[in-house]
This record gives sequence, structure tokens and C-alpha cells, in this order.
Amino acid sequence: MGVLRRFTGEKGNYSWDGVEVEAYDADGAVGGSRQVVIGKRDGAFNFGLRYYEIAPGGQTSFDRHHHDHGVYVLRGTARLMMGPAVYDIGPGDIVYIRPNEQHQFENAGEEPFGFLCAVPPRD
Amino acid sequence: MGVLRRFTGEKGNYSWDGVEVEAYDADGAVGGSRQVVIGKRDGAFNFGLRYYEIAPGGQTSFDRHHHDHGVYVLRGTARLMMGPAVYDIGPGDIVYIRPNEQHQFENAGEEPFGFLCAVPPRD
Repeated sequence: MGVLRRFTGEKGNYSWDGVEVEAYDADGAVGGSRQVVIGKRDGAFNFGLRYYEIAPGGQTSFDRHHHDHGVYVLRGTARLMMGPAVYDIGPGDIVYIRPNEQHQFENAGEEPFGFLCAVPPRD
Repeated sequence: MGVLRRFTGEKGNYSWDGVEVEAYDADGAVGGSRQVVIGKRDGAFNFGLRYYEIAPGGQTSFDRHHHDHGVYVLRGTARLMMGPAVYDIGPGDIVYIRPNEQHQFENAGEEPFGFLCAVPPRD
């Protein structure tokens, strides 16, 4: 049967029932955590959904890879480098990052920057 | 290059730059709208992301199909029928609906029920 992940967070604390908060320690990433809210352990093999949170002053990896991303900003603001462009983004904004497109999020704000990230199947 | 869909909504109006609000008129659905926030027109072929909104008293289609869903509730509350189970869900809750699992959302509340839905590639 399907899986319900109840939101257990309060303001300032995004968390879900049964979901572990992991360090997000990809190369070059600073101040981040990761929660796999839908993944293979749920039997989901066609896509995954994760929640990332980056502390003020932190950043995601300066990344370029084959899989694409769909991003929905839940909280805070960030500077997004995507290909040759730079954007300031905030809550509700949606980003599609293409396969092999260079990208990085920097949290230049004063509160955590949190986003959901949809990914295709991958190893 | 990738695509930024800026959130242009205010409280009570979820909308994004360049995204059309379509009727969601699947068989049995009542009171719904749909916005494809990431889709094939963006060059996204590995997954899609949509925003659905169901008016009070409305419902999604009583659906069962091969593709699975990842759902993130943005606003309002609903009764979710998933397989043999019934859940009351609200903002921040996350649902994974497996392939071929019967499912339906009913908005029994007094405000719109809105959710993001991730889907794998499909026709």
C-alpha cells in the first residue's frame, strides 16, 4: 500500500513522520541537511522526492550531473546559479534544472533555505 | 537552459509566471483545476510536476492507473482514500501512491485543497 508521511514540523522545523534527517555532505556543500521523503525504501522506483535545507551562509554542491531536478522552494531565500544565469529565489518559486546543467544554491539570507527536490530514478 | 517559474500567487491564489490554469476534468473529478508547473514543454522528460487545486465539496477522479504519484499538500485539507485506507491530510503532508493503487482526494473542508503532484514520464 502507499505511504503517508505526516508533517510533524512546526514553524522553523521541517520534519516528517518516519523520515530521518541526514547530513547533506556532497562535495563542496556547506551547512546542509537532507530528508528522503519519498524513495526506494517506499517502493518508489520511478522518481524520488527529497527535502533539503541549507543554513544561512551555506550552499549546495556546485553540481553538474546527468539527472535533472524539479525544485519547489518551501522556505527562505537563495541565490541560484543555473548555467550562465543567477537568480534570487524564494518561497513558492519552482525551478527545472536540465540534465547536465551546472547549478548551485547559496543561502545568502538570514533564515534556513528549504526546498523539495524531485529526481528521476538513479543509482 | 533551465526554467524558473516564479510564484506570482498571493494568499488564496496559487499561480506561477507563464503557467496556465487548466480545468481538471478527469472522469469523476469535481471542482478542480490543474497547472503543469514542470512538463514536457520545459524539456522535462524524466518526470513532471503539477499543481492541483480542488474547491470545497470537490474531489479528484476515483483513479487507478499504472503511474505512481508523489504528493505534497500545500494548502487546505482533504480526505484521502488510498487502497483500503482513509486518511485526513493537511498542509505539509506527503503521500506516495503506488502504481495501480486506487486513490481519490475529497475536499470536505471550507477552503481550497491544493497539492503538488510529481509523476513519472507518461503519455
